[in-house]
Amino acid sequence: MMQRCLQLARRALGRTAPNPLVGSVIVQAGEVVGEGFHPGAGQPHAEVFALRAAGDRARGATVYVNLEPCNHYGRTPPCSEALIAAGVAKVVVGMVDPNPLVAGGGIARLRNAGIEVVVGVEEEDCRQLNEGFVHRILYQRPFGILKYAMTLDGKIATSSGHSAWISSQSARNLVHQLRVACDAVIVGGNTVRKDNPRLTSRQAEAHNPLRVVMSRTLDLPTEAYLWQTAEFPTLVITQKGANPKFQQLLWQKNVEVIELPSLTPTHAMAHLYERGFSAVLWECGGTLAAQAIAEGMVQKILAFIAPKIIGGSNAPSPIGDLGLTNMTQALALERVRWQTIDSDCLVEGYLPQK
Amino acid sequence: MMQRCLQLARRALGRTAPNPLVGSVIVQAGEVVGEGFHPGAGQPHAEVFALRAAGDRARGATVYVNLEPCNHYGRTPPCSEALIAAGVAKVVVGMVDPNPLVAGGGIARLRNAGIEVVVGVEEEDCRQLNEGFVHRILYQRPFGILKYAMTLDGKIATSSGHSAWISSQSARNLVHQLRVACDAVIVGGNTVRKDNPRLTSRQAEAHNPLRVVMSRTLDLPTEAYLWQTAEFPTLVITQKGANPKFQQLLWQKNVEVIELPSLTPTHAMAHLYERGFSAVLWECGGTLAAQAIAEGMVQKILAFIAPKIIGGSNAPSPIGDLGLTNMTQALALERVRWQTIDSDCLVEGYLPQK
Repeated sequence: MMQRCLQLARRALGRTAPNPLVGSVIVQAGEVVGEGFHPGAGQPHAEVFALRAAGDRARGATVYVNLEPCNHYGRTPPCSEALIAAGVAKVVVGMVDPNPLVAGGGIARLRNAGIEVVVGVEEEDCRQLNEGFVHRILYQRPFGILKYAMTLDGKIATSSGHSAWISSQSARNLVHQLRVACDAVIVGGNTVRKDNPRLTSRQAEAHNPLRVVMSRTLDLPTEAYLWQTAEFPTLVITQKGANPKFQQLLWQKNVEVIELPSLTPTHAMAHLYERGFSAVLWECGGTLAAQAIAEGMVQKILAFIAPKIIGGSNAPSPIGDLGLTNMTQALALERVRWQTIDSDCLVEGYLPQK
Repeated sequence: MMQRCLQLARRALGRTAPNPLVGSVIVQAGEVVGEGFHPGAGQPHAEVFALRAAGDRARGATVYVNLEPCNHYGRTPPCSEALIAAGVAKVVVGMVDPNPLVAGGGIARLRNAGIEVVVGVEEEDCRQLNEGFVHRILYQRPFGILKYAMTLDGKIATSSGHSAWISSQSARNLVHQLRVACDAVIVGGNTVRKDNPRLTSRQAEAHNPLRVVMSRTLDLPTEAYLWQTAEFPTLVITQKGANPKFQQLLWQKNVEVIELPSLTPTHAMAHLYERGFSAVLWECGGTLAAQAIAEGMVQKILAFIAPKIIGGSNAPSPIGDLGLTNMTQALALERVRWQTIDSDCLVEGYLPQK
């Protein structure tokens, strides 16, 4: 039932920030009598939809929900009260609220009302589904995911900068799915110049992340897929006073431009946090990737490795200078998972949290 | 039974060049009555040992052997005749002789003598066990294996050249086992200067490959583990007339030095072929690795990938310039296998044969 909650929750993938992904199932005498998920900020929570669907059959029922029901008046009334009012007998909670200031409040309220509460079911999966939201709440910045594709000899492009395509079609499809789950995707100016990427999810009706370009100089091409904003918006983040003429050109193309006093991954992520974003995908080259890692703006790494050899002493590799001189200083990933995607391999892991 | 033959054959791992690894099992009425393997050049073949062990019980028995029995007088009389003389009823052969000039001769001889012969059992495994031997026979040069260990961001050392250790202890143990199966292991001068490797199998009683250093200038340290030859020999291959003084120093340390007119991977491998070697392991840096690949002296790649990030725009990557400018020109590995070794991943694959 908890896995079903996660499945329901995923229907709103990429659309709920700054809120979490939540799904809920109500079971009465072994039968599912109501289901729901939270479709996005400003709309009712998952439990409310499930209760509506269950109607009278919620009385005495068991409610499954992947995140602790809220206990405060926000844009919607607290779910704890709705559950109590519906007369449910038992609530099974995947994980407690990640905010240490309110964690456990909803559970306590339910227990005080005489409802049986079970906490921590499929907790690892629940936590992973909302890792962006959890990070946002705990650290007041978005969760950063660095994604790259490299050859078996560690190159992300040839010596001349050519990179299409390193990974297989299946791996690229997976990247499109990954974008669905993210609120923004960031590249640097060099990627725009060299690759002219689209950075979309390529899936009808699916969420598309905000496409973000970080460029100090705005020395960028006048024509680029990212400046085509009829379907999907693009944001360019630059430094105060950079190339006003090019800024004007971007505005004319409906590309939003914001100037920061200093253009760093930290400041860019702070801005995206203010926009309410939880999960940000770094799809940039090695220089920007290294800066983002060094500043603690990357929590998770997704590396696609294609079993091919391109060679090149000057061919770029995925991560630039981190200032580490001894191999023992290397950042060891945690919770590493290797999986094959067709002919390629996808490696997932988490950077040690600073 | 064929897998048992391969198991027996492996007892002589690294010791049979230029001969193949061969094991044999003789079964009489469901019972194993004789086993044998070929221990090395100049010694009897596997079938002979198995026949000796079986004695009279070989009459009417079934003989399993992973490679077609020989049919010519070499340093030993032909096994086909020995099998006929012993009166065996049936011979099960893993794979035919790779030499197109003699392939099938032993099988035909047995069949002419009225013995039932089955060919091609567990053929893929048989072929892989002797891939070095097969390559040697078909192409008149040793089979080249390139092995490297890199970080998840594609570096084989830090920017300052430090590389100990990239991979886990389990991965390193596997490299030691790999060395047991090889006749020689090659590094370049830079690896001697930077890493001061031992290049041994680190296993009591196991075979140790000949340790080979390729160095054009002989600008090498006067003290190095590779110059300690009391236990294991080292060969330095250089160019005609290089640094005679250093050559003298090496000879004094019992390090063999040979001068080639031109020091290339092709010439080095030609020399190792003349020494009777079948399998040669390249454990060199990116520059020499790229030369060896470009010259067709590498057939198989073994890449260890450690889930750690070191960074460094100038940190070396495993393979230097191959002159490929477009990603579509990348050399796609064939028969790729990804496997996890503790926290690391080992990727095995074969380069497209030129």
